[in-house]
Amino acid sequence: MIPAGNVDTRFVEEGFINLDPIQAAGRLTPEAMKAVISWGDGYSVCDHCHKPFRLDYVNNPPVADFHEEAAKWLNMDSVMLTPGARRAFQVVTGTLVGKGEPVVMTGMGHYTAYLSVEVVDGIVREIKPTPDHHITAEETANAIEDSIREVGTPKLVFVDAVDFMYGNMHEVKEIAKVAHQYDIPVLYNGVYTVGVLPVDGKKLGVDFIVGSGHKSMAAPAPSGLLAVNEEYADSITRTTKIQGNVTGRKFGIKQVGILGCSLMGDPVVGLIASFPTVKERVNHFDEELANHKIVTDALMSIEGTKVASEYPRRHTLTRMDTTESFNVTAQTHKKRGFFLSSGLAKRGITGIMPGVTKQWKFNTYGLTRPQAEYLADAFLDIAEENNLAIH
Amino acid sequence: MIPAGNVDTRFVEEGFINLDPIQAAGRLTPEAMKAVISWGDGYSVCDHCHKPFRLDYVNNPPVADFHEEAAKWLNMDSVMLTPGARRAFQVVTGTLVGKGEPVVMTGMGHYTAYLSVEVVDGIVREIKPTPDHHITAEETANAIEDSIREVGTPKLVFVDAVDFMYGNMHEVKEIAKVAHQYDIPVLYNGVYTVGVLPVDGKKLGVDFIVGSGHKSMAAPAPSGLLAVNEEYADSITRTTKIQGNVTGRKFGIKQVGILGCSLMGDPVVGLIASFPTVKERVNHFDEELANHKIVTDALMSIEGTKVASEYPRRHTLTRMDTTESFNVTAQTHKKRGFFLSSGLAKRGITGIMPGVTKQWKFNTYGLTRPQAEYLADAFLDIAEENNLAIH
Repeated sequence: MIPAGNVDTRFVEEGFINLDPIQAAGRLTPEAMKAVISWGDGYSVCDHCHKPFRLDYVNNPPVADFHEEAAKWLNMDSVMLTPGARRAFQVVTGTLVGKGEPVVMTGMGHYTAYLSVEVVDGIVREIKPTPDHHITAEETANAIEDSIREVGTPKLVFVDAVDFMYGNMHEVKEIAKVAHQYDIPVLYNGVYTVGVLPVDGKKLGVDFIVGSGHKSMAAPAPSGLLAVNEEYADSITRTTKIQGNVTGRKFGIKQVGILGCSLMGDPVVGLIASFPTVKERVNHFDEELANHKIVTDALMSIEGTKVASEYPRRHTLTRMDTTESFNVTAQTHKKRGFFLSSGLAKRGITGIMPGVTKQWKFNTYGLTRPQAEYLADAFLDIAEENNLAIH
Repeated sequence: MIPAGNVDTRFVEEGFINLDPIQAAGRLTPEAMKAVISWGDGYSVCDHCHKPFRLDYVNNPPVADFHEEAAKWLNMDSVMLTPGARRAFQVVTGTLVGKGEPVVMTGMGHYTAYLSVEVVDGIVREIKPTPDHHITAEETANAIEDSIREVGTPKLVFVDAVDFMYGNMHEVKEIAKVAHQYDIPVLYNGVYTVGVLPVDGKKLGVDFIVGSGHKSMAAPAPSGLLAVNEEYADSITRTTKIQGNVTGRKFGIKQVGILGCSLMGDPVVGLIASFPTVKERVNHFDEELANHKIVTDALMSIEGTKVASEYPRRHTLTRMDTTESFNVTAQTHKKRGFFLSSGLAKRGITGIMPGVTKQWKFNTYGLTRPQAEYLADAFLDIAEENNLAIH
């Protein structure tokens, strides 16, 4: 590896099939990589900033157009950019949730969802996951009712479209219907869907959509977006009203929730540069699932191996259960549980948590058909090497 | 220009001397550029994330070491990273300032300072700038007294080390002494100093130091840092206490103020890669000032031209007043006020606001001696071309 200053050069995507569950759909496109190189200086996006001096009005690079196109693409009324999805959560909770006020959210949520409530001193009221790891409209209604009875009417219902634990898909549309019966707005957490599969805000009937650039839109970190419907645009995208008590200074139309200009530098330019590819790729998610099936089929043919996620798969992020296959091998293997990641590494495959052989996650998003076949064979190879039966 | 996807390739630093006031000290070092190329994928920094699963513990890239070194370098107790300085302001106001509570801040502050108070529904109480555009300890005491009398004891005093309007240097040490007499913590806004000139938190006697990666530490955007002294570490860097009411889930030692892992992707890696250069360059700020003087001397030799900032200069960001020189030319020039930026552009110089000839800002940070001399000559050339007297 060639040192870059005091930082080593990373060597992952160049040499490996990378199955890391959170990295798969965030890999930069060649267009994003070129943009990053060219727009690496942070204030580069401000070269052509004119009145009213706000980043989302800039035309070169085409930041303004991107906002408009992204809103249309998600079938929402407007989009604001954020340095990561968690900052989008924070904009929403910071606007809607006061101290001691409850937010109903999935019990399978990401920690940043919980922290976005904690940072505004709100209260989390979880929706109980079903035994098969789903979040349902029925349990949402229960959580709302419990909240009303115990701590007050929730200010927000926060649901993951696809969760990070199992990659399961949840019935957001039905959940939104329930929430709206109580007049509670709904945040669709699309960090595993926006940029991966088609998302239509109006069809879903949600009030907010959050996407992650570096998780699912082939953009550099930190990048995210918050799509908002008209009804909440006034509050979420409110502009500054503060005024200096001595100088009388005011600050134009800067947005308070996002602290003015939203997302500078190569993250926004990379997001924009990848957007044509991303818009196109969501229409081919069936091909991604077909490739994924090649791998899960191979894994399931190893005796004792199960898919812990919902099945058939509706997402390429999957939790496997190999407690009764690879984990049995691990008990006596000289490398213990590391034999699996090590066996994969020898075959040019990385991204599965080293040492883990009971339940582990992987994501095949973006693999080509030959790569999927190679990966399937690699798992079978490792099973055979370790005398596991294959059916 | 070569198109990169739907984004043009930026062509500024490659072909021009760039005087943009906010861009000068943010230009990437070659080391940062290499790091950006290699670590462009957002979750790349998570490749080697192990227990306790927090970005500031990661050793490859050397994120953990960077935190420690940066704290030492600023002579503060600890450092946390943020996606931009404004997010550091928000962490502090979000922790210390409640609804309706006052913050005393400089009347020459950046809009993000005001918005960081507005976003927590706080109140801004400005320190009146002196007629020569300085913020003084005396006026700070007045602002504190006024605040106590009218709206309550301020929760924070927020001062710029060097302001963005004039590039003037303010007496932060004396201001901190005054604030501490009232037991009010002090935030040193070092977005124009941290990474540019030596900063010593203990000598200054401040409680928080905020720096900007993309403004003054040769790092990609968005990047910033918040250095904290022990006394406030418990509150500012508090870890999560929230717990799922159904699942009982907890979230380890993630920090609430920054919503968990702080700054991912190429911004953090670029920041780290530039750090050795940045640490070294602050020791040579006198050379930067010497180069700057070559340019201001030339400008001041043009009859009617004044430095609007404090003089002699203590920073390379300077506001010029050419109302009685270039602006006189602009009245009759066929290009009106654009003759100046256009004349500079012809000579390979960019970054001054086009069309402005009364008061305008420029920053020579990072120019070599020959570039400074070339720039000085260019201004004189333009003056001569337009028959302005030179002394």
